[in-house]
Amino acid sequence: MKLLEDRIRRDGKIFEGDVLKVDGFVNHRIDVGFISELGKEFYRLFGDCGVNKILTIEASGIGIACLVATHFNVPVVFAKKSKSINISADVYSSKVESYTHGKTYDVIVSKEFLGEGDRVLIIDDFLAKGSALKCLISLAKDAGAEVVGAGIIIEKAYQGGGDYIRNEMGVRVESLARVASMSVEGGVVFCD
Amino acid sequence: MKLLEDRIRRDGKIFEGDVLKVDGFVNHRIDVGFISELGKEFYRLFGDCGVNKILTIEASGIGIACLVATHFNVPVVFAKKSKSINISADVYSSKVESYTHGKTYDVIVSKEFLGEGDRVLIIDDFLAKGSALKCLISLAKDAGAEVVGAGIIIEKAYQGGGDYIRNEMGVRVESLARVASMSVEGGVVFCD
Repeated sequence: MKLLEDRIRRDGKIFEGDVLKVDGFVNHRIDVGFISELGKEFYRLFGDCGVNKILTIEASGIGIACLVATHFNVPVVFAKKSKSINISADVYSSKVESYTHGKTYDVIVSKEFLGEGDRVLIIDDFLAKGSALKCLISLAKDAGAEVVGAGIIIEKAYQGGGDYIRNEMGVRVESLARVASMSVEGGVVFCD
Repeated sequence: MKLLEDRIRRDGKIFEGDVLKVDGFVNHRIDVGFISELGKEFYRLFGDCGVNKILTIEASGIGIACLVATHFNVPVVFAKKSKSINISADVYSSKVESYTHGKTYDVIVSKEFLGEGDRVLIIDDFLAKGSALKCLISLAKDAGAEVVGAGIIIEKAYQGGGDYIRNEMGVRVESLARVASMSVEGGVVFCD
């Protein structure tokens, strides 16, 4: 999506250690009008899939998911990072490996809010190795819900998580910007 | 706001220990259409205040703030819970006492995204003792921004945080539902 690629080129910041920061419009400061435009594009892609729920993960997915959901007219459910050691019987749980923070944590969704008959669109800001997305797919499957696909703002395609989920897990993944490579010197190169 | 009071009576759940759960439409599962209606009401209240930024705190404030922001056509900045011990010079920081989780944590906002000339509306889901709201007001003041007010979905008025912030701190606080008292047996009683 050219609108997004241009914005990443203009406002994205690259740091050593394979970090692409889009804090100025996606995370931390959310450009609500811009993200809503991305929501329209997700609706163009998934609007005919009978989506009745959008699933995301706290914290940076929540705002985006809500803005996307206004186009679908469906509720958002966000998976929560669990603070307790004991996972209750009332929730589905799964693990996410955070490469940014160097640890693994549990995330949970209440059984009350995800279940059979749900047709779920997963929305998230980033897809790299795919740990968060795999976790959300696992939660949806445990709940007996159908995952109609995943809508991602920025995919670091060179990390392979997206293609693994498409090819090995059979889930439709649509990323609005796919990064082929990036470096502090050379900037961001997008996939064709 | 009757629409909200009715919804709390219908879908809110009260637990021992002064807990009012609105997980089914405010947190965890977000009823996007309903929250957007609340956003219209906040716009009615604050639409003439020259708001150019909405400030909230992760995680449960983010989705609500984004849906409110679509009515104001302004960006959202959310304060982040800091994981690191050292607070960088690039951020404003403040402390929040979480009564739910029984601990104090640091929250930060990048200096890049909040500053002089900003006219900030603070949005959050709950106001009880007011720790999160005081923290956000403090961050905005440190940044030299003007707080035009705070829009809260549910205020536990009997805990006094809202009136302290109105009367002692001089900040306009508008809560769409004000709980006068509540109990597992008697349900929720709203202020007149």
